[in-house]
Amino acid sequence: MDNDFVKEITPKSQDFSQWYVDVILKAELADYSPVRGCMVIRPYGYTLWENMQQLLDRRFKATGHKNAYFPLFIPESLLQKEAEHVEGFAPEVAWVTHGGKELLAERLAIRPTSETIICNMYSKWIKSWRDLPVLINQWCNVVRWEKSTKPFLRTAEFLWQEGHTAHKSEEEAEEETLRMLEVYRDFAEADLSLPVIKGRKSDNEKFAGALKTYTIEALMGDGRALQAGTSHNLGQHFSKAYDITYLDKDGQLKHVWQTSWGVTTRLIGAIIMVHGDDRGLKLPPNIAPIQTVIVPIFGKQTELVLNKARELFSYLKDEIRVELDDRDEYTPGWKFNNWEMKGVPLRLEIGPKDIQKRQVVLVRRDTGKKTAVSESELLPSLKVLLGDIQQNMFKQAKNFMQENIRQVNDFEDFKQLIDKKRGFIKAHWCGSSECERYVKEQTGATLRCIPFCEEKVPGKCLVCNKESDTVVYFAKSY
Amino acid sequence: MDNDFVKEITPKSQDFSQWYVDVILKAELADYSPVRGCMVIRPYGYTLWENMQQLLDRRFKATGHKNAYFPLFIPESLLQKEAEHVEGFAPEVAWVTHGGKELLAERLAIRPTSETIICNMYSKWIKSWRDLPVLINQWCNVVRWEKSTKPFLRTAEFLWQEGHTAHKSEEEAEEETLRMLEVYRDFAEADLSLPVIKGRKSDNEKFAGALKTYTIEALMGDGRALQAGTSHNLGQHFSKAYDITYLDKDGQLKHVWQTSWGVTTRLIGAIIMVHGDDRGLKLPPNIAPIQTVIVPIFGKQTELVLNKARELFSYLKDEIRVELDDRDEYTPGWKFNNWEMKGVPLRLEIGPKDIQKRQVVLVRRDTGKKTAVSESELLPSLKVLLGDIQQNMFKQAKNFMQENIRQVNDFEDFKQLIDKKRGFIKAHWCGSSECERYVKEQTGATLRCIPFCEEKVPGKCLVCNKESDTVVYFAKSY
Repeated sequence: MDNDFVKEITPKSQDFSQWYVDVILKAELADYSPVRGCMVIRPYGYTLWENMQQLLDRRFKATGHKNAYFPLFIPESLLQKEAEHVEGFAPEVAWVTHGGKELLAERLAIRPTSETIICNMYSKWIKSWRDLPVLINQWCNVVRWEKSTKPFLRTAEFLWQEGHTAHKSEEEAEEETLRMLEVYRDFAEADLSLPVIKGRKSDNEKFAGALKTYTIEALMGDGRALQAGTSHNLGQHFSKAYDITYLDKDGQLKHVWQTSWGVTTRLIGAIIMVHGDDRGLKLPPNIAPIQTVIVPIFGKQTELVLNKARELFSYLKDEIRVELDDRDEYTPGWKFNNWEMKGVPLRLEIGPKDIQKRQVVLVRRDTGKKTAVSESELLPSLKVLLGDIQQNMFKQAKNFMQENIRQVNDFEDFKQLIDKKRGFIKAHWCGSSECERYVKEQTGATLRCIPFCEEKVPGKCLVCNKESDTVVYFAKSY
Repeated sequence: MDNDFVKEITPKSQDFSQWYVDVILKAELADYSPVRGCMVIRPYGYTLWENMQQLLDRRFKATGHKNAYFPLFIPESLLQKEAEHVEGFAPEVAWVTHGGKELLAERLAIRPTSETIICNMYSKWIKSWRDLPVLINQWCNVVRWEKSTKPFLRTAEFLWQEGHTAHKSEEEAEEETLRMLEVYRDFAEADLSLPVIKGRKSDNEKFAGALKTYTIEALMGDGRALQAGTSHNLGQHFSKAYDITYLDKDGQLKHVWQTSWGVTTRLIGAIIMVHGDDRGLKLPPNIAPIQTVIVPIFGKQTELVLNKARELFSYLKDEIRVELDDRDEYTPGWKFNNWEMKGVPLRLEIGPKDIQKRQVVLVRRDTGKKTAVSESELLPSLKVLLGDIQQNMFKQAKNFMQENIRQVNDFEDFKQLIDKKRGFIKAHWCGSSECERYVKEQTGATLRCIPFCEEKVPGKCLVCNKESDTVVYFAKSY
């Protein structure tokens, strides 16, 4: 990461990766910090995250979850109790060794995820069947010491939510796991306009310590996949390692069944990469910090236009997220470009002629289309347009994804496609980890998911040619 | 900190400190964790915090602030740039020395507060007078390696908000400092029913690196003071150390003037200690996770009563924070005690006779008073009662505080009072650090604040007998 602001945005088609970073810095979503691999989320980016949090948190609460807060630190011995888990996370843990001048008797891990500390508490809190289910979520920061980093997508510290639940039965845990995956899908598609594929991760790709990991996978503008959210059925792996038991109605002491699930600030990266264009960001109205920006075009009647613009602002401000750009040091043209770059879904222009006609002009960020709307119809028109933009952005992204899902039967075709077109490639897979690893070694593509919505059809494994009835999705990924 | 749940609450008059911990554990606000000095905030306590956050965040936004997020880590060299600041905080910093297996080239402090990392970014972002003021707030976790800890009041990790602003002039910074102090006072008094004294800290007690620190001070049920929120005028101390300059309209390069201000989860400790009684918590309605609990009293008509209780719950649930306790494994009496212990402001009882009379019975947590209310008047009655409880709790706490403010002129009287009655003691002070330190050494009391609302009256310093026109507040404190 370097420390300079960009002045211009590199065209998306020319260098996707540079375009991505340019957009983030130029739109002031985030900035590099003096700490290796850590970014600063600036107010515009953080407001986006707050809007996302609100929409997700509402869904968590509607499904019976409550928020709590567990310590940032995890004693080393506690982290080590579940073998697969520690193996997966230990290499990327940041360690605290000193408090003030005192050397600690035991090193403290900064949480890379909180299963271990939460399980420790659950073993204390859960005694009886009456205590179940436990449905807790936490919004917090976590740290994973990554080698190479990229704003939002992969940073040493990031923000996320992690749900942790405990249940009486395997079925109930599986239901919860799938319920929260569906919450994520609905949130991604309805609020982020982000089409996703729901499926299960292979054993190679599942969460360290999970029985099964489910995922929603999205496709970025450069044809790479991005894991947008995961939901884990933990089975009894953790409840056995951390001794979380309850006395059942039948008088038996039993281990609970658990789940965990999370999404992170990397979703902001997905929004940028799925919707953005050469002019910059394009934000879905449901989460945009500013849904409509008012740009007054003064002509020769500054006073008149400014008063009308202020009147419109006052009228709208309790109804939608609106901003009035009344700065006089910038031209309207400069402002148009600036707010398009920042991805504001709708621009409202008002000038002397509009005032005469008792109208305003609305300009869509997604299509560029201009509409004159009579003042008396303003609020309903705005709401219809914002809803329409939300849906249109989903449709455009969905079309792009569908155009970039290709099925192949032959490994040579696979190699060529993944190299030249990227996208999702559907192929038969026999289910063996060896074949999966072979694909990764030869092509750099990983098995993204075993999708839910595919019919079982007979075919042959892409690699070993064995009989297979399972079609899976491969892609290069972030 | 030990690891056992308490089963009963120690009477407040018998052992205030044990009563405090009993209430926290029994009401499930928080629990001890396996990490030294760190607690878990359980869902009931966290919901309280969420309600507080919402009410504060609304005030921050109404005064023009936006939220952002800065890194958890601060490189050691960056922490050291402002001399007073590092001296104040270095002894209690937790240090990260390893990332994965790699030894870091430079140690990273876990933020004890974020002035240093934020100033580093401000020096990059602020270029021109057009960029000012910068009004940013952050909600996050911070770590201070404290020797002795107590849930909510003093823990190694805690949650807070920290505002950080930059301005063109000294006056503007001072205005902002006082504006945010007033936001805190209003929040404490209106939403937490917590009376406070506004004032300035002495030089001994001010924030490390600040020009001036302002504070709101509250009085706990055991007569100890608690610093409930602080607002700092940082002057140009940090802008000079971190080189934050802007090009003014007059073409001159100038250093900005800064403020910072914060409140923490220790406010939850204040709420417990100001309002609680032998039966447990008592929560102000504005922030109570549950404002009204419905307890059905089945008599011999379980079905009828349960249906009515559910009907009332559905009717109320979009209007107030309401819970229906329809568990059949507990008696109504057990439930009354349980919800009183959890501090729920109002209990709604409904039984067969009430149904006949088309009424419900409302019982106040603050006074114990019962009122029968006709069903048709339910919602307005509830709202009036909740508002009344909110105000009555403030009044009670204010009376307690006023009864425990005593003025003395003689040091021997001071010693006796602070020992036997505690409370705030008003006394003349000459302004010297020596006299202030002498009081602390001799009595354990500290100078809490130089209050805003006292008239200047002539008198003599409590310690040295020099002429003084300043009356200040001393107290033993948390």
